[in-house]
Amino acid sequence: LLTGASGFIGRHAVGALAARGFEVHAVARTRRPPDGRAVHVHSADLLAPGAAAALVARVRPTHLLHLAWYVQPGTFWSAPDNLRWVGASLDLVRAFREAGGARAVLAGTCAEYAWEPVPDAAPRCEATTPLEPATLYGRCKLSLWQIVEAYAQSAGLSAAWGRVFLLYGPGEPAGRLVSSVAAALVRGEPARCSPGEQLRDLLHVADVADAFAALLASGVTGAVNVASGAPVRLKDVVLELGRRADAGGLVRLGALPTPANDPPVLTADVTRLRDEVGWAPARTLGVGLDDTLRWWRAQSPVTAGRR
Amino acid sequence: LLTGASGFIGRHAVGALAARGFEVHAVARTRRPPDGRAVHVHSADLLAPGAAAALVARVRPTHLLHLAWYVQPGTFWSAPDNLRWVGASLDLVRAFREAGGARAVLAGTCAEYAWEPVPDAAPRCEATTPLEPATLYGRCKLSLWQIVEAYAQSAGLSAAWGRVFLLYGPGEPAGRLVSSVAAALVRGEPARCSPGEQLRDLLHVADVADAFAALLASGVTGAVNVASGAPVRLKDVVLELGRRADAGGLVRLGALPTPANDPPVLTADVTRLRDEVGWAPARTLGVGLDDTLRWWRAQSPVTAGRR
Repeated sequence: LLTGASGFIGRHAVGALAARGFEVHAVARTRRPPDGRAVHVHSADLLAPGAAAALVARVRPTHLLHLAWYVQPGTFWSAPDNLRWVGASLDLVRAFREAGGARAVLAGTCAEYAWEPVPDAAPRCEATTPLEPATLYGRCKLSLWQIVEAYAQSAGLSAAWGRVFLLYGPGEPAGRLVSSVAAALVRGEPARCSPGEQLRDLLHVADVADAFAALLASGVTGAVNVASGAPVRLKDVVLELGRRADAGGLVRLGALPTPANDPPVLTADVTRLRDEVGWAPARTLGVGLDDTLRWWRAQSPVTAGRR
Repeated sequence: LLTGASGFIGRHAVGALAARGFEVHAVARTRRPPDGRAVHVHSADLLAPGAAAALVARVRPTHLLHLAWYVQPGTFWSAPDNLRWVGASLDLVRAFREAGGARAVLAGTCAEYAWEPVPDAAPRCEATTPLEPATLYGRCKLSLWQIVEAYAQSAGLSAAWGRVFLLYGPGEPAGRLVSSVAAALVRGEPARCSPGEQLRDLLHVADVADAFAALLASGVTGAVNVASGAPVRLKDVVLELGRRADAGGLVRLGALPTPANDPPVLTADVTRLRDEVGWAPARTLGVGLDDTLRWWRAQSPVTAGRR
């Protein structure tokens, strides 16, 4: 059972799960997830009372990959909707377990870790980095996981929590870093950016989805960073996009201020993902950026025709 | 708006709130809370979808004291119902704030603190004791508070969290320490206890309720221990009950084993409650135990007639 199947990660997760042999039951509220031979599509609003229990009773899943959440760019950090998703997620996990479900993986976030610079700008580590969310979104995700972890222990459920870092790729909603720069460059418009000195862990959305599928298929429990393990400076990502779009002149580094409260370093220790889950990314950053530019050109036929 | 008004603390909170001048709107699901001039009674099941929003729309409270939870002795430590109460409590707090509510106080628990012996057996302190719940109940309470605290900051709500330690008094459900010993002694039956070496903070339920009323009336935010600040050994409590019931010979210390995972020391630092809220208990332990014995005699007319 896959929730959030029409979302940015979810749309890629459908294929990733099917490729690993799962019989995929994909749930979405607003848009229909991609149909396919290995996919059963269910329309449900998990925020509606009783929806999770009804869904689980119908599907009787053995495995749960719960990606659905409120993720509207700009507002998700502090929206009260985060509280509703905590309750809905708890309802879902409980209904899943009570219907005989055995293995659950849920999507967490790097925003659960302390935002403040860590000593020596070390990568965030599941075992050692303090969990001190600076945002309501991060707090709700962390608290949800801590409850699910305690519930899983007492209810005999195998549970893991994939902490997603920065991601990008085809289908990314407008208004996020790579999507806004790629969209501008493809339209032949200036891409206005902050100086981009921030160090980040960037992972292609199809790799994120595949990592979740691998985590679900594994027996690994607890929190696992879902990231590339290859830190990059955001300005280098933007400059690389410019080069690959043959539009380097349109990149305006420093045209915008660095966002307030943006941590200078937010990178991931991927030891658990690599060594315990046995997973590594399939795409280099270059390949992933080309892929993303291609997708934006397809969204913008006039500009694409110029190329 | 008072939830859990028919519960052990809630029944005492009705009067405590009225005494401080609140117009009390008391909510309960199963039993009717005490009627009274200053009390409006509402019947509602806060676990029912939409119940919190409907209640808040009807009452439009300025202040919220949320005591309702699943507290069945014996099962509440690990019941999945704890998850439902997290969601229901988040629904309630959000609905309360969105309807213009200004000040919310919720009931937490000493089980949010680490169970392991703290250095030098120090009293649990809101600011310095590690928050490491050993139980699903403690975890759900702590995670709820951490979400409510973050939500309160972002939504401009004044919020506090009263961490209840060990309590006792008239109306305590059977099967807890003081209630089971008092009931046995009043019936003239042996009171079988563990050796009772545990050091605890014990507070009369009417004082607990009054401390919550004082906290609600104050502007103090954050977590506040609700306790006496006067540690006692459980065996001394039981022996004192025996003396006051003129039934010391019925006390059987050591007849039962000490419960597994029972922390040897669980006492409270009450600096915040005393100095910031300006509250202190009105009852000594002796007065409180007499009070409790009187209540049990009234439940048991035949035995009471003998005295």
